[in-house]
Parts: sequence; C-alpha cells; structure tokens
Amino acid sequence: MFEQLGLIGCGLMGGSFALALKRAGLVKRVVGYSKSPSTTERARQMGVIDVEAPSALLAVSGADIVLLAVPVSATEATFKAIRHLITDNMLIMDVGSTKRDVVDAARRVLRDHVGTFVPAHPIAGKEVSGVEHADPDLYSGKQVILTPIDRTLVGHLKRANDVWDAIGCKVLQMTPEAHDAAFAAVSHLPHLVAFALMHGIANQPQGKDFLALAGPGFRDFTRIAASDPKMWRDVLMANRHEIIEQAKVFQRSLHNMLQHIEDSNSEPLEGMIEMASHTRAHWRMGQKK
Amino acid sequence: MFEQLGLIGCGLMGGSFALALKRAGLVKRVVGYSKSPSTTERARQMGVIDVEAPSALLAVSGADIVLLAVPVSATEATFKAIRHLITDNMLIMDVGSTKRDVVDAARRVLRDHVGTFVPAHPIAGKEVSGVEHADPDLYSGKQVILTPIDRTLVGHLKRANDVWDAIGCKVLQMTPEAHDAAFAAVSHLPHLVAFALMHGIANQPQGKDFLALAGPGFRDFTRIAASDPKMWRDVLMANRHEIIEQAKVFQRSLHNMLQHIEDSNSEPLEGMIEMASHTRAHWRMGQKK
Repeated sequence: MFEQLGLIGCGLMGGSFALALKRAGLVKRVVGYSKSPSTTERARQMGVIDVEAPSALLAVSGADIVLLAVPVSATEATFKAIRHLITDNMLIMDVGSTKRDVVDAARRVLRDHVGTFVPAHPIAGKEVSGVEHADPDLYSGKQVILTPIDRTLVGHLKRANDVWDAIGCKVLQMTPEAHDAAFAAVSHLPHLVAFALMHGIANQPQGKDFLALAGPGFRDFTRIAASDPKMWRDVLMANRHEIIEQAKVFQRSLHNMLQHIEDSNSEPLEGMIEMASHTRAHWRMGQKK
Repeated sequence: MFEQLGLIGCGLMGGSFALALKRAGLVKRVVGYSKSPSTTERARQMGVIDVEAPSALLAVSGADIVLLAVPVSATEATFKAIRHLITDNMLIMDVGSTKRDVVDAARRVLRDHVGTFVPAHPIAGKEVSGVEHADPDLYSGKQVILTPIDRTLVGHLKRANDVWDAIGCKVLQMTPEAHDAAFAAVSHLPHLVAFALMHGIANQPQGKDFLALAGPGFRDFTRIAASDPKMWRDVLMANRHEIIEQAKVFQRSLHNMLQHIEDSNSEPLEGMIEMASHTRAHWRMGQKK
C-alpha cells in the first residue's frame, strides 16, 4: 500500500495506471502533472488524479511511488526536473517501450539514486491516446517487463513486481538489451512496416480507390499503423540499432520471397510461406513454447 | 431461383456459398465435387451439398449455376474438365483472389462459351479452410467484385449480380486489370509482408523468445500470416506483376523511413508516420472517401 502516487504524464498509460491502483486500493492519493494544464485538469475532473501539480517536481514531492508516463524522448528531461526531490524510499518507474535509452538517461541524471528506478514496460496500449481513454482494465491480463540493472535496489524491484502483479499483470524480468532486441522484432519493426505499407498506398494516385476495396485482413494488418506518430517517431529513434538489425532480417526474407515469385520458383516460395504460416498458427499470445 | 448448383470445390468458400444459397431459398439442389472424395462425402453429410458427383464434369451436368471454388492455379484444368457440358444457359462463376489469370484461362478454354463465365471475387475468408468451417454468413455484409470482359453476356452478369446481392453482398464491378492492381496493394502484398515478417522472426535463433513477448498489436498484424500456404503461393504467383510493382512502392517507403532513422532525421520520419497514421485512422472498411 502506497501513500501517494506522483503521476507525471496523465495520458492513456499514466491515467490507466492511476485508475488501476485506486481500484485495487493500493494508493491513498494521486498527485498528477501533465505538460498541458488542460490535460491535468481533465484528469482531475475525471477522478484519475486527486490533486493537480503545477510541475513535475511538485508531483513528486511527498510521493512514495512515482510513475513517469511520458514519451520516451522526454524521459531524460523529466528525470532532470524531479531529481532534487528524489529520495531512496521512493519507487520510481516508467512505462516506456524502449529500455536501454531510458536506463542510460537514468544513470546520467539520477546518479546515486539510480537504484530507486525500476524500468518497466507494460505490453498494453490502444491506438487512441489521451486521458479520456484511460481504463482501469488496460493492464489486466497483460505482460509487464521489468529491466533492472546491477545498481537497482532489490527491495524496490520487489515492490515494483508486487504492484504490477496486484493490478493483474504477468511480470517478467530481463536485461534492457534483451528487451530492446525482442521488441524491435515483435513490436517496433511491425509498426514501422505497417506505417511504410500505409504510406506507400496513400502516396499513390489510385490509393483511395485501392483502400475502398480493402477487407478484414487489411483492417487487422494495418490497425497498428494508426498509432500515435510522435510516440512512434521517438520509439523508432530510441531503439534504432536493434530495429535496423531486425529490418535487415525482414528485408532479406521479403527479397528472397520476391525473387522466388519473379523466377517462378513455387516450391521454395511455398516452403517459406509454410514456415511463416505454421509458426503463426501455433503461436499463442503470452505463451512460450 | 436456380434449379441446380454445380459446386466444384466443397471447401470453405464453396461450401459457404452453397449454404448461403440454400438458406436464401435460391437453389433447389446442390451437386458437389471435390478433388478429395472424403471432402465431398463430408460436405454431403453436413448438408452442404445434396448429391456427390464423381467428377467435376458430372457436377456440372444439368446445373443452371456453377461455382468454381478451387485454388486459382486449378482454374484452367477445371475449365477443361467441364467444357464439354457447358451450355449458354449456365451461369458460371469463380471466387478467385486474382482475376486476370482466371479470365485468360477462361478465354483459352471456354472459347465460344466464355460469355457464360462471370469472374467473381468475394472479399471474405477465414484463416482456417475446409468444409467444416463453411458458414452461410461468410459472405453477408461483404463486398464482391465482378470483373466482366467484353464478351460476357449481359443477362449472365445481371444474374450474377442478383445472386450475390441476394446473399447479402455489396456488388462492385471493375476490369480484371484494375482488380488485380488494387488487390496487389491491399491484400496480396500485405500477405506477402506478413509472411516475410513471420519468416524472418522464426528463422532467428532467438525467435521463440521474441515471440513469447509479442502482444496484441503483433497478434493482429500477423493474423493473415497464418493463411493457407498453397493458396497464397498460387495467388502470389498468379498476380506477380502487380505484386512486384506494389512491393517496390512499399520497399521505397520502408527504405526512406529507415534512412531517416539512421540519419536521425526525426522530422521527415514523423511526417511519413503521420501520413500513414492519418490515412489509417480515417479509413473505414468498404467506404470510399
């Protein structure tokens, strides 16, 4: 049980975390700050936060748990804004989709207090953003990855584990590096590919005619292409090294398939499709096999 | 109202068409043939067809409506198998995902009777195949594209229009060429890309670990990668020209985005994502705008 959550960023992710903690009876009071005062006000009107803070620093003041729910590119600046009020009793977490850059920023800015920060990535989201979509169920039944470093305090890691567990998450642990490689493959590259495919269609003179004919397969395939541009620009930049590596793997597979199509090599083409189809048909979300 | 449907291919697509016609009271009797006798038998046991035919030719005998629901690569051989019993009163249709190759096969094989064939592509399907998944609702509320040629008989085209309309489809008409270009963009290339992405992940030593972390975005993005390998091998081969053209457009967009990522050009990267995201967020299935 926490006394006070300092919430920095009262959007979809932060607002949903606050609502989930409140519903589970895990926090007495939520003090929130968002860059846009109208967002902070709206969050209070909706009951997502109890008190509006005029700055990130004041949102942290007196908190025993702090959540940074800001774009990954704003992480370092946010650490700088709050570092003077950080104490070793405070559990600080984030919700960023990339972890190596966030950990690097924490090392640079938090220094002796870096052990209070437990990097977290909940695998949850929606294609819509903003506090009006905040949902106490957003995280329930989802995975959350914690990526502690050598200097992370064991007690803080344990508390981080407990709080995500209490709001219904399955908690996993891995290194920031392993996290970033895996998510480049199964999240960041798929987003990039979906954006590129939509961009390619929209950029053609007949694009609108084509889109009028698209069916349910296209709808699901491109759902993630509607995601927030600024957020994804930042994620793609932050994890560029791993994404470029995964893009090479993908481009090689695509190139080989196109070559087989061009050369009428139907057997190896079928073999590659078969491998993809078999893997996908046997995959179950959240299960290792 | 038809007397007898000759169904060649009693799988998901053909079986669903037969069930939909029966439910709408549009046909008195369905005579079915599948390459595998056990499929034909199962279709009869399930009430999808009324009579098992021992050959494609005998399925056509006495029919006033014929549906070819076979892989696109089997279209020409099927036309050859049935041509001796085709009469000008018979309405012949297919359900293939590509149309230029099907029309070419019809011209070559059906010759003077080519006008009885109304090429059709219903935009419906499932990731599972087989008569056991046949569903009288598969086509309802979906689009179907008819691609008549100059020699198509107007009366047949009208009847084709009416039968799809009667089972709940929105009927559109376009040339085989326009059809193939559009579906290369919004269906065939997305399938190829989804197959290549899954293949690339599965082909890596850490692939299984990566997949265990994938979330709902990945699930939807890769749903079409579980599609039937033989069917898609055929579609990709049959529409190769348009698919290769669309692949170039996509590869160019992807290449440019990756270049912006590598060069830290975040503004043009965001611009491209923004265009994709805006287009996808405003797209509605089956609506032209």
